[in-house]
Amino acid sequence: MARNAHPEVTERRILDAAQGIFFTKGYENTSIQDIVDQLGDLSKGAIYHHFKSKKAILDRLTENDWQAANAKYADIAARTDINGLAKLRLMIQESIGNEQHNKLNQVSISFLDDPQTLASNLRFWATELPKRWQPFIEEGVRDGSIPTAYPREAAELISLLSNYWLLTHFYPATRSELRHRVTCLATMLTAIGVPVFNDELIDLTVSFYMSYNA
Amino acid sequence: MARNAHPEVTERRILDAAQGIFFTKGYENTSIQDIVDQLGDLSKGAIYHHFKSKKAILDRLTENDWQAANAKYADIAARTDINGLAKLRLMIQESIGNEQHNKLNQVSISFLDDPQTLASNLRFWATELPKRWQPFIEEGVRDGSIPTAYPREAAELISLLSNYWLLTHFYPATRSELRHRVTCLATMLTAIGVPVFNDELIDLTVSFYMSYNA
Repeated sequence: MARNAHPEVTERRILDAAQGIFFTKGYENTSIQDIVDQLGDLSKGAIYHHFKSKKAILDRLTENDWQAANAKYADIAARTDINGLAKLRLMIQESIGNEQHNKLNQVSISFLDDPQTLASNLRFWATELPKRWQPFIEEGVRDGSIPTAYPREAAELISLLSNYWLLTHFYPATRSELRHRVTCLATMLTAIGVPVFNDELIDLTVSFYMSYNA
Repeated sequence: MARNAHPEVTERRILDAAQGIFFTKGYENTSIQDIVDQLGDLSKGAIYHHFKSKKAILDRLTENDWQAANAKYADIAARTDINGLAKLRLMIQESIGNEQHNKLNQVSISFLDDPQTLASNLRFWATELPKRWQPFIEEGVRDGSIPTAYPREAAELISLLSNYWLLTHFYPATRSELRHRVTCLATMLTAIGVPVFNDELIDLTVSFYMSYNA
């Protein structure tokens, strides 16, 4: 394979190989040499030519995951056959039912112990992520499926609580305690006119967050 | 005044002087020299003998404020003339109606922009602060005034949301937007059987949090 004839192909191969190893061995236990061994035809130097560090590889994987989620979001937003509530549910299902996204989050979660990373994530959850939920909630208000007076508050709380309070990493819980917590969130959201968590979505959510305990 | 005959008296004087200047000029604009000038009879060296930095003075003020709140908490907990709901309300009123505590929070709030400080506060809000609310909620469950199945969740959410989500520093808001947010929180807590925010407490809460906008 001619090196750098198509750098994006090489980068894609490095990312795929690294992701596979991160998922099986864990991020901490993975070395650049593991990635070299897996690929077979690239030197350490060649990998560093494309990514300055192991962290840079993980950052690119995370960025690509976010772009994929944005594409999914755009697809759901464009649908005309379902109402706002169904779109909101579908987007949450996509977020928590996506195995690739799930595994990547598991790889990344220890970085939330770094105060800088936690602070920048909190800023993102407060300012950017609500923009993903609020349009669906507002569509639901217009079509009658989400009878809420609190679209902005619901979007902020879904972002903050689903990324922080539901994580057993920050708030330790057994499976039954986590189910109780998710049911609590469901009850509160229903009370403000956002009945997004039905029994099926509660089940999915509990299973998703328990997988972080592994 | 004999220096160091009673170090706790000297420390008290330094703390009182520093607090007064922090409250009028702001923490950033206060120098150790300002504290020297205010006291009149202590040198810079004497102040540094008791506190290694301006930040150490603020940390002690914050620690004393927390101890005062703990004493207030113990007083309320010991009362036998009111139910759990009334105790919970009273404790929230004490937290947000205490002008000294309020001003000290205003002085300290910029430190939450430091990721280390934010992360350690978040840990405190997740693990320690709920212990202040949960016993009153459980007392209310026993005496029937707080008919909730979610004492732990309510304690965690009151701690997290009142220290983070309600702060316009993190989630900018006009007064009417903040009132909407507090009303949303009140509605959600009532829905899980914790009807702690009545109209009077909503008013107090909005005024308290708007003062941070100053």
